Parts: sequence; C-alpha cells; structure tokens
Amino acid sequence: MKLIDQFLSNCRIAAGSVVKLEAHDPAWEGDQNVPKSERKKFSKGVLDANTESLSKAQELLYASDRWSILLIFQAMDAAGKDSTIKHVMTGVNPQGVSVNSFKKPSTEELAHDFLWRCAKVVPDRGRIGIFNRSYYEEVLVVKVHPEILQAQRRPEPRIDQSFWEGRYESINGFERHLTRSGTVVLKFFLNVSKDEQRKRFLDRLKDPQKQWKFSLADLAERPHWNEYQKAYEEALTATSTKWAPWYVIPADHKWVTRALVAAAIVKAIEGLDLKYPEVTPTLAAEIEEAKKVLGKEKD
Amino acid sequence: MKLIDQFLSNCRIAAGSVVKLEAHDPAWEGDQNVPKSERKKFSKGVLDANTESLSKAQELLYASDRWSILLIFQAMDAAGKDSTIKHVMTGVNPQGVSVNSFKKPSTEELAHDFLWRCAKVVPDRGRIGIFNRSYYEEVLVVKVHPEILQAQRRPEPRIDQSFWEGRYESINGFERHLTRSGTVVLKFFLNVSKDEQRKRFLDRLKDPQKQWKFSLADLAERPHWNEYQKAYEEALTATSTKWAPWYVIPADHKWVTRALVAAAIVKAIEGLDLKYPEVTPTLAAEIEEAKKVLGKEKD
Repeated sequence: MKLIDQFLSNCRIAAGSVVKLEAHDPAWEGDQNVPKSERKKFSKGVLDANTESLSKAQELLYASDRWSILLIFQAMDAAGKDSTIKHVMTGVNPQGVSVNSFKKPSTEELAHDFLWRCAKVVPDRGRIGIFNRSYYEEVLVVKVHPEILQAQRRPEPRIDQSFWEGRYESINGFERHLTRSGTVVLKFFLNVSKDEQRKRFLDRLKDPQKQWKFSLADLAERPHWNEYQKAYEEALTATSTKWAPWYVIPADHKWVTRALVAAAIVKAIEGLDLKYPEVTPTLAAEIEEAKKVLGKEKD
Repeated sequence: MKLIDQFLSNCRIAAGSVVKLEAHDPAWEGDQNVPKSERKKFSKGVLDANTESLSKAQELLYASDRWSILLIFQAMDAAGKDSTIKHVMTGVNPQGVSVNSFKKPSTEELAHDFLWRCAKVVPDRGRIGIFNRSYYEEVLVVKVHPEILQAQRRPEPRIDQSFWEGRYESINGFERHLTRSGTVVLKFFLNVSKDEQRKRFLDRLKDPQKQWKFSLADLAERPHWNEYQKAYEEALTATSTKWAPWYVIPADHKWVTRALVAAAIVKAIEGLDLKYPEVTPTLAAEIEEAKKVLGKEKD
C-alpha cells in the first residue's frame, strides 16, 4: 500500500461508523519522525504528480463518456476550500470542469426543495463538477440556526430529530441515484482548528489585497464553533455511505490538504479503469473509406 | 506599439468594414525574414507570459466584481477550437471560468428563440465565460443548410435576405445589451485552410487515440467549404461591432493561434484597468474592531 493511500484511508469515514472529530487532528502533518522539509517535498511531489494524472484522467473521462465526477467541499470559513480547488484543479482543461458555489439561497431557490438548485447543475457525463458548499449547508448552518427554516416555508411545522433524519435520507437517496447513474461522488470536509481559523482571519485583516473581502459577519459564527462541530459530526455520521464517502481532511496545513485531496480524486478516477472507446468494425471501415476520400481529393 | 499588438490589430475586424477572407492568410506565421525557431520561441513566450497574466487578471476580475468576460469561438472542424481553449485557459483557476459547448439543439432548446440557450449561461459577474460554438451557428451552418430552419417552427415563413439581417440585428442587440451590462465580448474566428483541415483529418484517422471520435459526417461539410466561407464573410461583416469585435485568427499553425488568442484576451482585460476594491472608512473601522476581538479571544 502506498504511503499516501495509507494516509487517505485514515481520512475516509467508513459507512456506519460514528464520527468523533476529536479523533481527527486538524494539524496532522505526516510522520513527525521524518524531517518537515522531506514531508513537504513528498507532499509537493504527490500534488504535482496528481495534477498531471488528473489532467490525463479528465481527458479519458471525457473520451469514455460513461461517468462523471462530483466533488463536494464543505468546511468552516478560512479552512481553504477556494485555495484547495484552485491548487488541485488549475492545470486541468477548464472545458472538462465546472465549479459551482452555493451562497445564501435566492427567492427562486427558496421556492423549491433544498436539493433543487444543486441538482440542476450536477456535472454532464464526461466532466468533473465541483460544489463549493452544497446542500449539506441545509444540515449544517441551518441546524445551528434553525430560524433560517422559516424562509423555506415547508409544509411540516415541526423541527425535531425526525426532521433532520428526513433531510439526511433525502441526501443519501439523491447521492445513491447519482452514483447509480454514473456519477462518482466524493465529499471533503476540510477540518480546520478554531485557533488556525483565528490566525487566518488575522492574516486577512492585515493583508491590503484581502481586506476588502472582510465583513464583521465573518466573525459571527465563531461563538457557535462547538455547535458546528456537532452538526458536522452528525451529518458525516449519517451521510458517509459506501457509494459517497466523506473524507475528513486535516486543514491546518495547506500543503497537507492539497496533497490529500488531489490523491483522493486521482485514486477515485483511476478506480474506474477507463479506456479509450474501441474502434468497432463499422467505424474501422468508415475510417478506411474516409482515408480514401481525403487521399483522392484535389482542391 | 508592441509587436504582438501590431499582429493583433491585423486580425481585428473594424466595425463597418467588409470582410474578405482571401485577405486573411490562414497560414500566416509572422515575419518570414526572422528564423522560424525564433518566431516559435517568441510565440511561446507570449503564450506563457499571457497565461500568467490571465491567471492574475482573473483574480482581479473576481475581486472587482463589476465586469465579466465572454469569449466566443467559431471555426470549421479541426481548426483547433478545443485545443486553443485548453492551451490558453489551462492554468487559470477553474472556479473563475465556465465553458459551454453548443451542439445540435435539444427539443427544449428548439422550443425557444435561437439566443435562449446561450443567454441562459452567460458568465456571472467576475467570471470568464467561453462559448465553444454559439448562436453564430444560426447564421453559419443554418445559412448553408436552411432546411434546418424547419425544426425551428418560426412564425415567419420566408427565408430571404431580410430574415438573415433580422438575425444579425438580434445578435448585435444582444451583444450590445451584454456589453452595456458589464460583459466584455470578444469573438474569435479560427481561420483554417481547407488543405490544413484535410491534413488534420488524415492525422486523426491515423491516431489510435483519436480514431474513436471519427464519424463520416465530419467529411460531409467539406463540399460546402465555399458556402461556409461566404457565410462567415457575411456574418463577420454584419456583426463586427465597436463593442464586440471579431478577430480572424490564422489557424494553420497552432502555435500562432494560441499566442494571438491569449494576447487578445489579456489585452482586453488589462484595458479595463481593474483595481482591488478600496477599503472604505466604515470597513477600516470594522477591521480594527475585528482585530481587537480576535486578539483578545482565549479559546
């Protein structure tokens, strides 16, 4: 078993297991007995090799025209969703990738069920789709702030345990349908620590090129940190399935995050064992015919 | 004036001018008095520099949140649309780019006006959108094969000169609206010669990794080559406007195509003179407040 696969299997949540985030160290950065410079070099090598593999895998994905890939990223603010997407996917032909970010729902979106706006933009066959946040917000931020539900005007008035279980069931059913239809679904929770988030917020506040992004609202969720951790534990426990597994990725060190995410994606695509389509006898005959036609042509 | 800008200005169709494609050499490859190796090196330098500029420009485009960019690619088969998009855009964060390919319209698309399917997917503010083919097919392949119009079930029965002028007018109106709303529109006709297309088709037919893509239908349009040239001349003449110019890009040499397209895109974005948003006094006060809150925090 390759070293990186071993690391990955530690991040992967087995279906049916109960997730305790305290068992997942956000600051994990490999075997501490190996010098840090060597670990960083190894990680860079993994990222580079996988960026190249990903670029090739994406062409094969397109050519074989049978599967699509859906990558879902969830995390607390400043965990590195945007920069991970940027570093892992830059280098892949944008023609084969679509990225969707899901922010506060619009009036039109609120007039539909909570999966609707995401279901509309799942990737075409042959493509990689990325969700930067997703319908999982509906069992995370909405669970921490259930008052949001009022705007959703649902028919059932009660918000109890069975309500949230209904949402998990809807999500699992939707993902089962996608995977059954040829979409490989991988879900990444970028696990950042509260203290590392504080450091990153402070860095942003000092950087003139990042200050404009800031709003006091960014700090508003920090007092709810423990409630979010609990909501993540419950969501990951309920929705890590055999067909659509969650990965809890250590996110206090960006070089660790990027290497692990890239490796997980490439491993999943390679698992499909894609091949270029075979040339059928009919097509072979057409090819011969075409060579003759073009060969004879005088302009 | 930089050398590459000079080359570009030769490709750009001035609004109101009558396009004659015989005045545009598909095999153009720079000043023949300069050794080819030097010209190729220059072109590679332009592409690399612009790929990097494009990556930075895209971040600024996103930050300033005022403009979007729409790039339209049209060409005969095998002119290099896909490979140009791949080579120019790979290296840009896919989160800031969306690519749409328009193939044979679906039943739902045919039930709407001919701009509808493209209008739905114009780029969000802050993003680069790429159309691989577009509504221009409606005045190109449809003009060469007017029988396609039967499936469109239009109310007006006649297909005469004023019908095509109506389409050009619809297109110009739509693009004027887009640019007025903050979308920069650039249109590229990749101008390949009939003989180079023949060579590329023959190469494809011989390459085992490309044979599966082949269909005899690919050859079916070659007998209509001159009609297509005429349709392109008419469309470019009617729709090259001050606000949404066409570029006729020499496409017999891929290294030439890529460098010119990359340079045109970067030049257009740089022309916007984008800046990071300013920090207002209110925001500055909030930033100071946040620094205090985070500084005091004990976990």
